[in-house]
Amino acid sequence: MKTLTTSIPAIELQASAWLNVDKPIKLSDLLGRVVIVHTFQMLCPGCVSHGLPQALRISNTFSEEDVVVLGLHTVFEHHSVMGPEALKVFLHEYRIHFPVGIDQEVAGSSIPLTMQAYDLRGTPSIILIDKQGRVRLNHFGGIDDLMLGASIGQLLSE
Amino acid sequence: MKTLTTSIPAIELQASAWLNVDKPIKLSDLLGRVVIVHTFQMLCPGCVSHGLPQALRISNTFSEEDVVVLGLHTVFEHHSVMGPEALKVFLHEYRIHFPVGIDQEVAGSSIPLTMQAYDLRGTPSIILIDKQGRVRLNHFGGIDDLMLGASIGQLLSE
Amino acid sequence: MKTLTTSIPAIELQASAWLNVDKPIKLSDLLGRVVIVHTFQMLCPGCVSHGLPQALRISNTFSEEDVVVLGLHTVFEHHSVMGPEALKVFLHEYRIHFPVGIDQEVAGSSIPLTMQAYDLRGTPSIILIDKQGRVRLNHFGGIDDLMLGASIGQLLSE
Amino acid sequence: MKTLTTSIPAIELQASAWLNVDKPIKLSDLLGRVVIVHTFQMLCPGCVSHGLPQALRISNTFSEEDVVVLGLHTVFEHHSVMGPEALKVFLHEYRIHFPVGIDQEVAGSSIPLTMQAYDLRGTPSIILIDKQGRVRLNHFGGIDDLMLGASIGQLLSE
Repeated sequence: MKTLTTSIPAIELQASAWLNVDKPIKLSDLLGRVVIVHTFQMLCPGCVSHGLPQALRISNTFSEEDVVVLGLHTVFEHHSVMGPEALKVFLHEYRIHFPVGIDQEVAGSSIPLTMQAYDLRGTPSIILIDKQGRVRLNHFGGIDDLMLGASIGQLLSE
Repeated sequence: MKTLTTSIPAIELQASAWLNVDKPIKLSDLLGRVVIVHTFQMLCPGCVSHGLPQALRISNTFSEEDVVVLGLHTVFEHHSVMGPEALKVFLHEYRIHFPVGIDQEVAGSSIPLTMQAYDLRGTPSIILIDKQGRVRLNHFGGIDDLMLGASIGQLLSE
Repeated sequence: MKTLTTSIPAIELQASAWLNVDKPIKLSDLLGRVVIVHTFQMLCPGCVSHGLPQALRISNTFSEEDVVVLGLHTVFEHHSVMGPEALKVFLHEYRIHFPVGIDQEVAGSSIPLTMQAYDLRGTPSIILIDKQGRVRLNHFGGIDDLMLGASIGQLLSE
Repeated sequence: MKTLTTSIPAIELQASAWLNVDKPIKLSDLLGRVVIVHTFQMLCPGCVSHGLPQALRISNTFSEEDVVVLGLHTVFEHHSVMGPEALKVFLHEYRIHFPVGIDQEVAGSSIPLTMQAYDLRGTPSIILIDKQGRVRLNHFGGIDDLMLGASIGQLLSE
């Protein structure tokens, strides 16, 4: 099993806008619940075929009172064709109903702000945050359901 | 097996531009070969998960001298976020290497020109054209590999 | 596309018994139809996960008047646990409804008679027979649906 | 998430023989580890396509010091063709390497002893036992990897 050893306090997600939700998500409001952040780009094949379907499965498997699933659109390439309007259509067509933040652009850099803060290597990436608001997993690429489920189960029972 | 009874001469594809190819594709230049046109929209989930992977499988299974695979981007909704630049990124990220035409927009209509001419009902759709340039299958939605393979095999042996 | 060049007259299947059918199957009675023989062993993982599901898909896709699907149980190892009674349970549990012959054992050999006659290399194997009763494909191992579908389509239109 | 509320002390598995292991498995020897028992029949399609592959994934995902995967062959029908010799061939062909017990037959009943003791409803079934040797999940049928992973993770962190 993936050892969940890191315990860095999770930095707030820096989103220029949030979709699928009425007001901005603050991690500090979610203390007491396990939070899983799926970072993605809408034109990243691995995100579309693996990361986002897994996020939807998590969202459908666990109660929202136990596990909160968030998306974060961390565009670091092809910015002009993955803007907010395109993302809205994408979320609608793919029936992604959980909150999705648009990672804040940084002047003079192709890497957006939260992606920099969390030192993410690419998309898809998964950030797992425990009930006390600490980052326990920061994973780039695919991770299978059994392993991710076990990590979630471990954090739930802490 | 799907009976291939229609025998309407295939109308030329009306594309405002062709990607992945040096010059515009003309069906009349492809007489003597079986042609399969996969029409899609880049933000249509069924196209991304089923139609386009099948088109790639066909392209990898048959010799180009026998079977020509073409894509046609028939945007009939959300036009502003599925323009040529977005499509180029999409084809690059999904490694779609066969020629893709951009169906010609029609002033005052959301339905592009070839989509109207072929009376297509949505995306994905498949148009199968025989060696004599006649439409033999015009199918909306998914079709399984066995059935589609049998149709291609039938047209190849005519 | 797999070239279907062989044209050896198909040898009759030498079965000690036929299941799922009232009387023994004779290939000579099936002239005018395309025949596909899936050879398998009930405890062969590749047969259970790929070969037999494909045989069922073929059986469900094509009309029995066009394409006849036959199974042939070619046991060449572990004979004592893959006898007729075990096979009957297997066919029942896996809901295999097409005719299945039990390849005739040969005294002093572990390889049964039809398996020898067709020079089959193992399981699963596929034998494709055209309308004139000639073997056109004799394939060991997996073959994808597109390719097999195209071969069937070709034989159907001859 | 599946609530793990039951806490019945796990009854020892009553096996007439154990395969893939030198000496009989006793649950009492496994205290301190999470134990997962996959019960199956070798000719049960759902066991072959879902239950056993999941058991193998669990075995490959977790350290044996944390999670012990056991199989239990609970034959309740077609006994004559699912005997020990057939099972040995099955385990060999499907490359199942974890310990598998053969549930003890009961004179005058088609249901074997452990299957009766655990009140199992059929195959596949999953029994999840915590570090203190208590049954925490007794589930008939399929269960997805996320849910099962979360249950395992929960028991691991207790």
